[in-house]
Amino acid sequence: MSIKSFHPPQRVLMGPGPSDVSPRVLEAMSRPTIGHLDPMFVSMMDEMKALLKYAFQTENELTMPVSAPGSAGMETCFVNLVEPGDKVIVCQNGVFGGRMKENVERCGGIAVMVQDEWGRAVDPQKLEDALKANPDTKVVAFVHAETSTGALSDAKTLVEVAHRHGCLVIVDAVTSLVGSPLKVDEWEIDAIYSGTQKCLSCTPGLSPVSFSAKALEKIKNRKTRVQSWFMDLNLVMGYWGGSTKRAYHHTAPINALYGLHEALVMLQEEGLQDSWARHQKNHLALRAGLEAMGLNFVVPEADRLPQLNAITVPQGVDEAAVRNLLLSDYQLEIGAGLGAMAGKVWRIGLMGHASNPRNVLLCLSALDDVLGRMKAPIRRGVAVDAANAKLAG
Amino acid sequence: MSIKSFHPPQRVLMGPGPSDVSPRVLEAMSRPTIGHLDPMFVSMMDEMKALLKYAFQTENELTMPVSAPGSAGMETCFVNLVEPGDKVIVCQNGVFGGRMKENVERCGGIAVMVQDEWGRAVDPQKLEDALKANPDTKVVAFVHAETSTGALSDAKTLVEVAHRHGCLVIVDAVTSLVGSPLKVDEWEIDAIYSGTQKCLSCTPGLSPVSFSAKALEKIKNRKTRVQSWFMDLNLVMGYWGGSTKRAYHHTAPINALYGLHEALVMLQEEGLQDSWARHQKNHLALRAGLEAMGLNFVVPEADRLPQLNAITVPQGVDEAAVRNLLLSDYQLEIGAGLGAMAGKVWRIGLMGHASNPRNVLLCLSALDDVLGRMKAPIRRGVAVDAANAKLAG
Repeated sequence: MSIKSFHPPQRVLMGPGPSDVSPRVLEAMSRPTIGHLDPMFVSMMDEMKALLKYAFQTENELTMPVSAPGSAGMETCFVNLVEPGDKVIVCQNGVFGGRMKENVERCGGIAVMVQDEWGRAVDPQKLEDALKANPDTKVVAFVHAETSTGALSDAKTLVEVAHRHGCLVIVDAVTSLVGSPLKVDEWEIDAIYSGTQKCLSCTPGLSPVSFSAKALEKIKNRKTRVQSWFMDLNLVMGYWGGSTKRAYHHTAPINALYGLHEALVMLQEEGLQDSWARHQKNHLALRAGLEAMGLNFVVPEADRLPQLNAITVPQGVDEAAVRNLLLSDYQLEIGAGLGAMAGKVWRIGLMGHASNPRNVLLCLSALDDVLGRMKAPIRRGVAVDAANAKLAG
Repeated sequence: MSIKSFHPPQRVLMGPGPSDVSPRVLEAMSRPTIGHLDPMFVSMMDEMKALLKYAFQTENELTMPVSAPGSAGMETCFVNLVEPGDKVIVCQNGVFGGRMKENVERCGGIAVMVQDEWGRAVDPQKLEDALKANPDTKVVAFVHAETSTGALSDAKTLVEVAHRHGCLVIVDAVTSLVGSPLKVDEWEIDAIYSGTQKCLSCTPGLSPVSFSAKALEKIKNRKTRVQSWFMDLNLVMGYWGGSTKRAYHHTAPINALYGLHEALVMLQEEGLQDSWARHQKNHLALRAGLEAMGLNFVVPEADRLPQLNAITVPQGVDEAAVRNLLLSDYQLEIGAGLGAMAGKVWRIGLMGHASNPRNVLLCLSALDDVLGRMKAPIRRGVAVDAANAKLAG
């Protein structure tokens, strides 16, 4: 066995995440490792919490990154807030609502599913009806921005409905954080999790979370122990909590946290409003180009998420072959469909650092070439002009 | 709010982990992020598995890094192998045995504790007696190298005892992997977990694990679902498993895995035997110096772990003040005591990249100075010579 160092190619990441990572974030990750209880590291943790509060638009004291990917952030919310026997309404409009159901059931909870069509926003009326039919519901959970379809739901209204019925609310913001307006305190969200590899443009592996005082109260007054030791917030708070004395729980992923800190400093420099506007502007340019080519969005305009564009694969086109050619000839990654949408859609991400005019034009030009070579029924040579018109506007 | 980029100081990490990380590993982490299903990344994953098999000395197909720190690796072993009602014998001789008990109970298992003195190896006879008294035991768990005390247990014998009684065995190798002889297949260990931030000298955040065919069979034939979705190996195997078709489970921490790959390539270059010998040699030099100064080890010589040296704080010396001076004046981190040993011991790590003669001499010289300034009852000016004699020998 003689394995050499791994030198990855330089891709352009326009799939559903990871997205392109800024060289500043990559460089930050290569800074010298220090101890997880080093006073300098503890100061950095305090800054990180302040920056995450800004990203989430919250004053929640318990705002921190879970030391594992977004799926573990999801599980952290469920294992802490759901006790055996608790009824949880999960609004599902894509793959990740299904994962929430798995989480509820593995916590011993009872999942009541409210189904919406994949590619559409969650319907608040259906949630209202389900809550009336299930007055003993303790928790409502939904995905703000479904990464599997590119549909954006009205989180503010859904939280209002759930709160009217006395429920806590868990929100998946993996793809929405920093890319679309999201206001944890104003919308009164109780528990929220995200990922670092989408609109934050950091490397994957961490999951920012935030919990309201009401959620924290529920966690502190549980009748049963949290089933996960690693994710038990009663323990994690000893390390990430408000006290100046930090107790060892697990060894934090030091260098990954350097990267997240740098990504959040960059967010602070740009400003949250400007980040939301940038994601929207580049989306409109991409959309103009795609529609000029004759490609169709899966999600109706009103429900559409700017940072994840799900496009129907034209009839007769081999979807995997297109992605493979984009990767081999242009070093460009776009995403395949997930779950029920596998084989039927492409998912084009414009997330974080990758949401820029250069990528919009590259993606449209490369699709024009590759779809042309595959004799797809598209209009050639019009996409870039359409996008440029939007970018100039 | 105006938070600046974080530039950590350059420390020398001689605590219980994280240990010093090679610049090669840090540089690898800053290489361009690619997708978690990119064919180039999938090839890297295959190499990683081969390299981890070498590190663990196993042919186990299910050998991979869990996408979270060592504590999550521990939990991955327990949630997959322990079902509600299962009796588990945990041999405890330090902090981490106590964490195992927490894990067993949170899985609904019944933990039977076999206690050994902290700072001593686990006694195989006590395990034998406990197994005779509890013939319905399903799993035995112990820590190979207790990070809280620096005691090394005889894993081979403990596994033999457990197997004679028909039990599966879970081994904590967080601090032993690559630092001390460890042979998963030869010793017939069923499930093992480690961390990346100790003798592998990678950054913290990943947990290499390996499972035998027998363990895998138990996982596949569970009567109940694994309580954690994130750690359910039945699902994780779809991504890390043997098939060439990798299914999305969670988004892997791409750049952290680049770092681990590089650390494992460096291990391959040095060779496992040479790594074990290096850890032993530097330990003997440090020991000679510490003993020349009149400092005492917590662990008797026969049970002593070369990569973690727990030293009794001399009477009348403020242990935290010593660590603070070492950090402020020499940028040198050593560890405090943990659990019952808090305030009573220092833990000096010689792990991975940090296990080198330069660090041995720095640590001894700095201790000589700082303990001298604090008027500790030590012999001054003799430690470096004693260590050098061992390094030359």
